[in-house]
Amino acid sequence: MKKVVTIGGGTGSFTLLSGLMSYPLELSAIVSMADDGGSTGILRDELGVLPPGDVRQCLVALSDTPDMLRELMNYRFTEGGLEGHSFGNLFLSALEKITGDFGRGIKEAAKILNVRGEVVPVTLSSTRLLMELKNGEVLVGEHEINVSKNFEKVGVRKVSLRPRPKVNSLAVKKILEADLVVIGPGNHYCSLIPNLLVPGIPEALRTTKAKIVYNCNLTSKRGQTDLFTLEDYVREMNDSIGSERIDYVTYNVKIPEASLLKKYQKGGLLVAFENTSERSYRVIRADLLSTGKNNYHEEDKIAHTRAFIRHDPEKLARVLVMLLELDGYESILKDIV
Amino acid sequence: MKKVVTIGGGTGSFTLLSGLMSYPLELSAIVSMADDGGSTGILRDELGVLPPGDVRQCLVALSDTPDMLRELMNYRFTEGGLEGHSFGNLFLSALEKITGDFGRGIKEAAKILNVRGEVVPVTLSSTRLLMELKNGEVLVGEHEINVSKNFEKVGVRKVSLRPRPKVNSLAVKKILEADLVVIGPGNHYCSLIPNLLVPGIPEALRTTKAKIVYNCNLTSKRGQTDLFTLEDYVREMNDSIGSERIDYVTYNVKIPEASLLKKYQKGGLLVAFENTSERSYRVIRADLLSTGKNNYHEEDKIAHTRAFIRHDPEKLARVLVMLLELDGYESILKDIV
Repeated sequence: MKKVVTIGGGTGSFTLLSGLMSYPLELSAIVSMADDGGSTGILRDELGVLPPGDVRQCLVALSDTPDMLRELMNYRFTEGGLEGHSFGNLFLSALEKITGDFGRGIKEAAKILNVRGEVVPVTLSSTRLLMELKNGEVLVGEHEINVSKNFEKVGVRKVSLRPRPKVNSLAVKKILEADLVVIGPGNHYCSLIPNLLVPGIPEALRTTKAKIVYNCNLTSKRGQTDLFTLEDYVREMNDSIGSERIDYVTYNVKIPEASLLKKYQKGGLLVAFENTSERSYRVIRADLLSTGKNNYHEEDKIAHTRAFIRHDPEKLARVLVMLLELDGYESILKDIV
Repeated sequence: MKKVVTIGGGTGSFTLLSGLMSYPLELSAIVSMADDGGSTGILRDELGVLPPGDVRQCLVALSDTPDMLRELMNYRFTEGGLEGHSFGNLFLSALEKITGDFGRGIKEAAKILNVRGEVVPVTLSSTRLLMELKNGEVLVGEHEINVSKNFEKVGVRKVSLRPRPKVNSLAVKKILEADLVVIGPGNHYCSLIPNLLVPGIPEALRTTKAKIVYNCNLTSKRGQTDLFTLEDYVREMNDSIGSERIDYVTYNVKIPEASLLKKYQKGGLLVAFENTSERSYRVIRADLLSTGKNNYHEEDKIAHTRAFIRHDPEKLARVLVMLLELDGYESILKDIV
């Protein structure tokens, strides 16, 4: 069975994995551990646990279990002292407390949720994301980044992790053994780059024999990646990896409905595509847009409202699976630039 | 398969059901819904849910699932805004919220926990326990009863439920179809009597062809049942049922170790046994005492510390199962008065 490793955060990885689950693949989801917003942030601060939110979304995507249990994992309390807490986050935090180990907690959760594949935190160290703005200001933690309006005007200079985390050796192993590594979709600075900031991950990506695909975001994030073209995104990815290691980039060519675009104005713009022939990677141009007909995201209302313009799990998976050179892939690859 | 119905609350029913689970019986646990203390009370107040705590304990007792999931259900958070919450209570409350119905939530929980048998709330109405003291003071809710010191000095005149609950018709059906109904062990006024205060339950107990056993408590509760003899307990039970319907009473004859008795001084005294030949019921005298060697209660630390002197699940079940007239029961019944 072909081994596919995904690298990302919560919502983007959920979409990606939901689509890949239809194929007979050995899936491993490497998950960023820098989240400290919302329910996850409260649990980190109050219980001293590692961030469960992104791991939870990946577990749910990979779980083959009655719908009720999946729905339960994404349920959020809306009242009282529990307001905003995702039940699945409490589930993972309780398992971490019982087992005394986040990694073991995930394994137990995976058993209960009948997970196919593996969810691998990129690190088991407690670490926070630092975002340095172009005016020298430093924002600490995803939560601070998300509530700050400043970076929208100023722009990002650099992101880093503090304290310096120790890589989860299982993540390195999975990358080295993979046939295909898929980076993204996901928030560029808050979900994707934090994985590449963990020492050991860039080295593994440079070493592995796997093909590496990067799913370019559909839209840019205001203040973080304004006016980024596809080429800008890929350059930053390759810079973080330390070589021009990305082989393929998927790029959506389907324009969303005007009403959706309007809704999204405040959130960002569609990612542009430069017409250049000098690339170290091949671009797969395809319709990757969700028409909102599937309800993969309905289960988590918050994730749903975060992304109006988003990837379609099935369309995305179909393109990625082609890269594994399964039967008949050549005829479908004609869209590659 | 013989049908056994238990009537009680949380910890006592947990003990009883844990023991009965070793036998091939069709088990139904009717559970009091008057609890409003601790984690359960907070969830009732903040989320407007029905009390999950006692139901949770019965579900765990009846669940045939990996130990980790059972441990998780009894896990209590010890820090932050979640402090004191039982994970299993959050689990049941989230399911009630998702399904919009406590009864359906229990059914979904039972599926997830692979429960053998059925847990049946005595009512699906939201109701509170009222305790009227001998000086006319009225305490509202189990929580108020548990924190009040007053009733310890004054004594109880009467308990009732407000508002008047509507009986769960499934509870009535289960009682009517049962071969054996087992009442207790459990807190007399806060767990056992509240079941009998639900209109429809006494009628069902008077009507059923089932044998009815009452597991007399090992100790008395200070301020509530001081100096109650076995006969006093049974009289109050029969009064609540509205006829001398109890057929058998189990009574522990094994004296606990002195060190345990000492620990328990503040909690209550051992229940005495009057030497009278005029009884409407038969007394089963047996060693029913837990030696602390099994760890049924270890899973829930709070339940554990509430009862130092408690029933042994296996000893209790063995005696009860004899009453079902399974093979060879006659020879063991010699202890009956």
